[in-house]
Amino acid sequence: MKKFINAPGAVLTDALAGVAAAHPELKVDAENKVITRAGGTRAGKVALLSGGGAGHEPLHGGFVGTGMLDAACPGEVFTSPVPGQMLTAAQAVDGGAGVLFIVKNYTGDVLNFRMAAELAAEEGVTVETVLVDDDVAVQDSTYTAGRRGTGATVFVEKIAGALAEQGADLATVAEMAKRVNASSRSFAVALTSCTTPAAGKPGFDLPEDEMEVGVGIHGEPGRRREKLRTAREIVATALDAILDDQPLAAGEETIVLVNGLGGTPLIELYVVFNEVAATLTAKNVTVARSLVGNYVTSLDMAGVSLTVCKADAEMLALWDAPVSTPALRWGV
Amino acid sequence: MKKFINAPGAVLTDALAGVAAAHPELKVDAENKVITRAGGTRAGKVALLSGGGAGHEPLHGGFVGTGMLDAACPGEVFTSPVPGQMLTAAQAVDGGAGVLFIVKNYTGDVLNFRMAAELAAEEGVTVETVLVDDDVAVQDSTYTAGRRGTGATVFVEKIAGALAEQGADLATVAEMAKRVNASSRSFAVALTSCTTPAAGKPGFDLPEDEMEVGVGIHGEPGRRREKLRTAREIVATALDAILDDQPLAAGEETIVLVNGLGGTPLIELYVVFNEVAATLTAKNVTVARSLVGNYVTSLDMAGVSLTVCKADAEMLALWDAPVSTPALRWGV
Repeated sequence: MKKFINAPGAVLTDALAGVAAAHPELKVDAENKVITRAGGTRAGKVALLSGGGAGHEPLHGGFVGTGMLDAACPGEVFTSPVPGQMLTAAQAVDGGAGVLFIVKNYTGDVLNFRMAAELAAEEGVTVETVLVDDDVAVQDSTYTAGRRGTGATVFVEKIAGALAEQGADLATVAEMAKRVNASSRSFAVALTSCTTPAAGKPGFDLPEDEMEVGVGIHGEPGRRREKLRTAREIVATALDAILDDQPLAAGEETIVLVNGLGGTPLIELYVVFNEVAATLTAKNVTVARSLVGNYVTSLDMAGVSLTVCKADAEMLALWDAPVSTPALRWGV
Repeated sequence: MKKFINAPGAVLTDALAGVAAAHPELKVDAENKVITRAGGTRAGKVALLSGGGAGHEPLHGGFVGTGMLDAACPGEVFTSPVPGQMLTAAQAVDGGAGVLFIVKNYTGDVLNFRMAAELAAEEGVTVETVLVDDDVAVQDSTYTAGRRGTGATVFVEKIAGALAEQGADLATVAEMAKRVNASSRSFAVALTSCTTPAAGKPGFDLPEDEMEVGVGIHGEPGRRREKLRTAREIVATALDAILDDQPLAAGEETIVLVNGLGGTPLIELYVVFNEVAATLTAKNVTVARSLVGNYVTSLDMAGVSLTVCKADAEMLALWDAPVSTPALRWGV
C-alpha cells in the first residue's frame, strides 16, 4: 500500500486537522469528529446534517457551508459514524427549526442515524430524515438493503440546502430532499479497485482488461464484469440503466453529474461528459446544469459514476442559488 | 491500459467537446483547439494566454474565465501546442492592450510560444511572456533547460489575472506575473507513474515500496528513489527543499498549494496539508491562503506537489479578488 499518510489509524484525525487548517470558514470538532460552519446556524434556519464513512471526500465535509450542509459527521474510512457523534452535531447546529438528516442508504448509516434521531428527539431536537438511494445498479448489496446512495447526495444536499437557506420549514425542506432523490438515478463503472488504509490492499481484483459494471462506492460488486470498452459504450450502458429506471421524455430538463471516483483523470471525465451530453441531446433531453469532477469518491478507485436528476424549474432555481463550501462555490 | 476514452488519438478532441458541453461560459474552438471566455475580452483589458500539453487538467482550460485566463491552448497529451494555435488564440483575445503569454518552462512550450510571440508581433499584437520555473527538484530535466514549471502556474494565472481584470497595463501585469513566479517554489513526490493514452503503459516503473522524490509532472525523474515514508517525513523533505531555495522568515505570509497529481485521494491531500500547515506554523510563517485539491495533474499519477508562494499584501489582495472559472471560483 502506497499512501500519503502517517499511519492507517491516523488518517481521519490527520485529515480533519488538515480541513481545519485549510478552511477557516469551517469549524472542526476534532474530539467528536464533527464539521460545522464556523458561523453556526442562523436562528430559525433548518439545519442540514449528513455523514458517512470517510474515503468519499469531498463528500460530506466539503459540502458544509452557506447554501448547503450545516454539519458533516465522518466515520472512519468506509465505516459509519456513530449515533453520539450525530447527536452532538445535531445539537450543535439546531437553530430551533429542526435538523434534516441526509443519509446514504447503507445499513450501518441507516441504523446509526435512526438511533441518533431518537436520541435527538429525547433532547428536544426535531429531526426529519431523507434516505438517498439513487444507484440503479443493484437492488441490494454488500452494505445495503435496497439501493445504494451515491451521487444524488450532492444534488439533495445542494438543492435542499438552498431551500433551507431561503427559510423554508423542516417539512418543506425534507419534502424537497425526497423529491430530488426520487428524481435522481446513478450508475458507476470501475476500472480498478480501491485500497483502504486499514486493509492495505485492494478490496477486489480486477484483471487488466476488465471493468466492474455497476460498482458501488466502497468497491462493492456491481452487475457484472466485462471486458473494457470505449467511453461511448460505457456511457451507453450506464445511461441505459438509468433511463430504463426513469425514462426521460423529449423536452425534459436534467442536472447531470459526471463524477470521478478518485483515481480518474479529469480529462477522462470530460470525455465521458461529452458522450453523456451528446446522448441526452440526441434524445432531446436538456442538460440544463452539470458538474464534472471528483465529488463522491472511493479513495483511489479509477472509475466514473453518472447521476441524472430530472429537474423542474424549482429545483433548477435552487441549484443556481448561492453556495459557498470547499467543494462547491458559486454566486457568492 | 484502462482509461475512459474512445481511442488514444481522440482524447483531446473528445475532452474539448466535453468542456464545451459542460461550460457554456467558455467558447471552445474545436478546430484550432483554443478555449476562450464566451464573452471575449473587454476592450482595453490585457489578455492572459496560457497553454501546454494536455494531461494536466484542470490546467489550463479550467482556469479560463473572469479574473484569470482569457485563453488556453492545449496540446496533445504531454505535447506542446503549436505556434499557429497560439497565434489564433492571441488574436482572438487581444483587446487592444496586448497579451501576456504564461509559459511553463519546458523546451517545446518555450520554443513554440516564442515563435508565436514573433508571429503575433507581425500581426500587430503586442505580447509579453512570463516563464514559470518554480520546481526546485532538479536544475535541468528530460523536458527542460532550467527548472520545470509546475504548481506556481496557478498562482501566476490567478494573481496576474486579477491585476489585468482591474485594468493594469501589459508591463505591469507581466511584472506581477514574474514577481509571483520568483516568489514561488514547488516540489513533488510520486507514488506511482502515469500512463499516457499514446504509450499505453506507465512512463516508468516504481517498485511497490518506493517513491520518486522530486518527480516532474510528466513523470520525469526527480532527485532520487526512496523507500516510502510517512506523510510527515515526505512533507519535511519537500518543505526543506523549498525553504533551502527560498528561506522564509518568521512573520512572513504565504499562499500554499497542496496539489494532487491526479490519482491521489483528497483525504490524503488533507493529511499532507495538515503537515505543511503545522510545519510552517511552527516556524512562525503564516499560511495566509491555501488550496488543497487537483489543480496541476499528471493524468493518473498518485502523487502530491507542494507549492509555497511568499506573498505580499498586494498579492494577497489580488488572490482574494473575484474569480469565476471551472476550477477556481470565488467572490462572484
